Amino acid sequence: MIHFDLSGTKSFLENQSLESAYADVSQAFKEVQNKSGHGPEWLGWRDILTSPNDALLSELDTLGSEIREKADVFIICGIGGSYLGARAVIDALSGFFDRNKGPEIIYAGHQISGTYLHDLLNYLKTPKADGSQKSVYINVISKSGTTTETALAFRVLRKWMHNTFEDASRRIVCTTSASGGALNKSIDRNSYKKFVLPDDVGGRFSVLTPVGLLPIAVAGIDIRALFYGAVSACKEIESKPEDLLNYAATRLALYKSGKAMDMIASFEPELAGIGGWMQQLYGESEGKNGKGMFPVLLSFSTDLHSVGQMVQDGQRNMMETFLVLNNPAYGLNIDEEDDDSDGLNYLSGRSFHHVNQKAYEGTKEAHISGGVPCVTISMDKLDEEHLGRFIYICELAIAVYVYALDENPFDQPGVEDYKKAMFRLLGKPGN
Amino acid sequence: MIHFDLSGTKSFLENQSLESAYADVSQAFKEVQNKSGHGPEWLGWRDILTSPNDALLSELDTLGSEIREKADVFIICGIGGSYLGARAVIDALSGFFDRNKGPEIIYAGHQISGTYLHDLLNYLKTPKADGSQKSVYINVISKSGTTTETALAFRVLRKWMHNTFEDASRRIVCTTSASGGALNKSIDRNSYKKFVLPDDVGGRFSVLTPVGLLPIAVAGIDIRALFYGAVSACKEIESKPEDLLNYAATRLALYKSGKAMDMIASFEPELAGIGGWMQQLYGESEGKNGKGMFPVLLSFSTDLHSVGQMVQDGQRNMMETFLVLNNPAYGLNIDEEDDDSDGLNYLSGRSFHHVNQKAYEGTKEAHISGGVPCVTISMDKLDEEHLGRFIYICELAIAVYVYALDENPFDQPGVEDYKKAMFRLLGKPGN
Repeated sequence: MIHFDLSGTKSFLENQSLESAYADVSQAFKEVQNKSGHGPEWLGWRDILTSPNDALLSELDTLGSEIREKADVFIICGIGGSYLGARAVIDALSGFFDRNKGPEIIYAGHQISGTYLHDLLNYLKTPKADGSQKSVYINVISKSGTTTETALAFRVLRKWMHNTFEDASRRIVCTTSASGGALNKSIDRNSYKKFVLPDDVGGRFSVLTPVGLLPIAVAGIDIRALFYGAVSACKEIESKPEDLLNYAATRLALYKSGKAMDMIASFEPELAGIGGWMQQLYGESEGKNGKGMFPVLLSFSTDLHSVGQMVQDGQRNMMETFLVLNNPAYGLNIDEEDDDSDGLNYLSGRSFHHVNQKAYEGTKEAHISGGVPCVTISMDKLDEEHLGRFIYICELAIAVYVYALDENPFDQPGVEDYKKAMFRLLGKPGN
Repeated sequence: MIHFDLSGTKSFLENQSLESAYADVSQAFKEVQNKSGHGPEWLGWRDILTSPNDALLSELDTLGSEIREKADVFIICGIGGSYLGARAVIDALSGFFDRNKGPEIIYAGHQISGTYLHDLLNYLKTPKADGSQKSVYINVISKSGTTTETALAFRVLRKWMHNTFEDASRRIVCTTSASGGALNKSIDRNSYKKFVLPDDVGGRFSVLTPVGLLPIAVAGIDIRALFYGAVSACKEIESKPEDLLNYAATRLALYKSGKAMDMIASFEPELAGIGGWMQQLYGESEGKNGKGMFPVLLSFSTDLHSVGQMVQDGQRNMMETFLVLNNPAYGLNIDEEDDDSDGLNYLSGRSFHHVNQKAYEGTKEAHISGGVPCVTISMDKLDEEHLGRFIYICELAIAVYVYALDENPFDQPGVEDYKKAMFRLLGKPGN
């Protein structure tokens, strides 16, 4: 299960501000339930959980397995919410190096580097050890199909695919809006396989739609267990929302007390992608009209030897959110050695997890002493069900928190500003 | 060459505060030169440039080439400043995917994950395509040899190396302090090859010592050109420091105007490692006694679709530092297509670099309009010489800036706090 430990914030908050924040987020939760708050047309990420589409899950699972079997390389072409959720789940459950046999997963269309695309094309062209062409599949993910970064990369990759594979049309899968948009024209012309991103689900809330689920299925992950983990969390919180509301209220009270940053930190490197997904989900939802805490992603303990000094002793303007894993996938014990010159024999017989856990506890203690309020969100196990639960919890928590700030958690008007300026500088027709 | 563009900060700063900051950093620069400021015993990162050790460079280059030839996998075992500089240069110059043929470079000892180490050992044990054992070399980098993260990983990896390779002693290279410390005992016992991290150079200022240079040489990068790039920058700035001092003064004035964060952002994914190195260099140097700006690493344009909303429209407490590359390694042009359903034909004939450059210019314009002062540091070319220059410039800039805050840029007392708490919780003898 997923647990919140808010005890590391108690000494920084007065009861009154916490009670007032709790009343605000409770009210906000009702607005989410009743679709009576800001952007009610964007609450589809809840609706998909209350009416699961099992046929769609099966279809995604079947195609995912087929691609997994046939592909050497699977390219996820998308930016922001179009790939961060998939990457989070894939990185969390696939292990390191090549533990998770299956196609190599490569991201593209998330920036405009010609060097990256040049190197990627060369890599795709390089034959396998047996001299044959690598088998490549692409999932392009874009609601409109005209997002510059993704469209540019797809233009190049699509051309190469059609020049290389006779069955290119079956190797390209598109995830886009139901109708309209540039990708739909291309789908009609080339008979690409298509999945739909529902109109009422925004990019950063879309990991449990085909946007995230197809890539996750290709990675050999059980998307049904992931999805139904979220379904369970949704049901349970609907009748017993107190833990989640306490978390959202604590975060709100800390923000109102003047905190400018939320450090999202974990001691488990496989959770870095989850942190990146949260960073987008939180930052893009709350950063409006001069409000919000900047979400900073930290990977401990390496970042304790980087910005750790700043967390311990810099400006006192931050809170910290630890993502903790109570039982990691693999244990490894520390052996007794005849040569104890490294002085580590005092740990012999202990597991790395034990040491890592004490590093987390020691860090949290030190940061609280240093003036940083700390929240812990812990998962008993890193599997599909827990991740599904975690995803929904974060989505709901940020929605009620942002409602309590009296902002719309589902839009991102500021993202348009760089695009407008870029289009004018590029001389895009009509800009 | 390296250029500073400070024009994007002008509308946010008054002349008077800028002049006062310039006087402060000028004074600070004299203290660096005269070794009369805080921590004068830590200025070895300048001394190595004024008296280059060509014999050492040759020795590192020779061993680096030998390992490059013989290794399938090269493991860099270290944390914080022991690997961030090497990773920065290697990532910047090696390209993506396997453009840079040579041993696979793997980092370890930078966290305490048993899952990571478990998967790494399995990967090392998995035979090559021809059925033979992978050839593995390790460079362990630790001043004391007792840093828990690095020592734990090295204990496990060293044992595996000795069990696997008859010539393990020649496959393990240690970079540590001249004498004393745990690693020196192990070196004496096993006749490992040893390189010295000078006592007067701190970890985050050590990339141009064997700490960074051996791994960089293994990656096939010209360490002489890198080192002498820094030597040239050092000489030139000594007689003409105005550009660098203007940059440091601008950063100081922005901090004093209330900025809490410095977003280090680039549109070139190969510069992400450089940003990570700067993040440690800046954050660990300035985050003291409640002072300093938190350095946040952003990778654009993907992060424009993540925390971009927050940069554009969140709390107005940040400055931004763009790292720009004027001429990327590879060009790639956008072709005209018969099917213009993606609407990109207006860019046909343009290079990706042109579009990326306009994305940067548009973003900077939008962020300045949104109230974020922007600095740009641009490199004409991404090569060894430019990176060497860039490294020295950042080192000197942060040193004078932190002197001007009346703090010691070279210590990191706050990093001890988590260690102390962790050791107590682990029951380490003597704690």
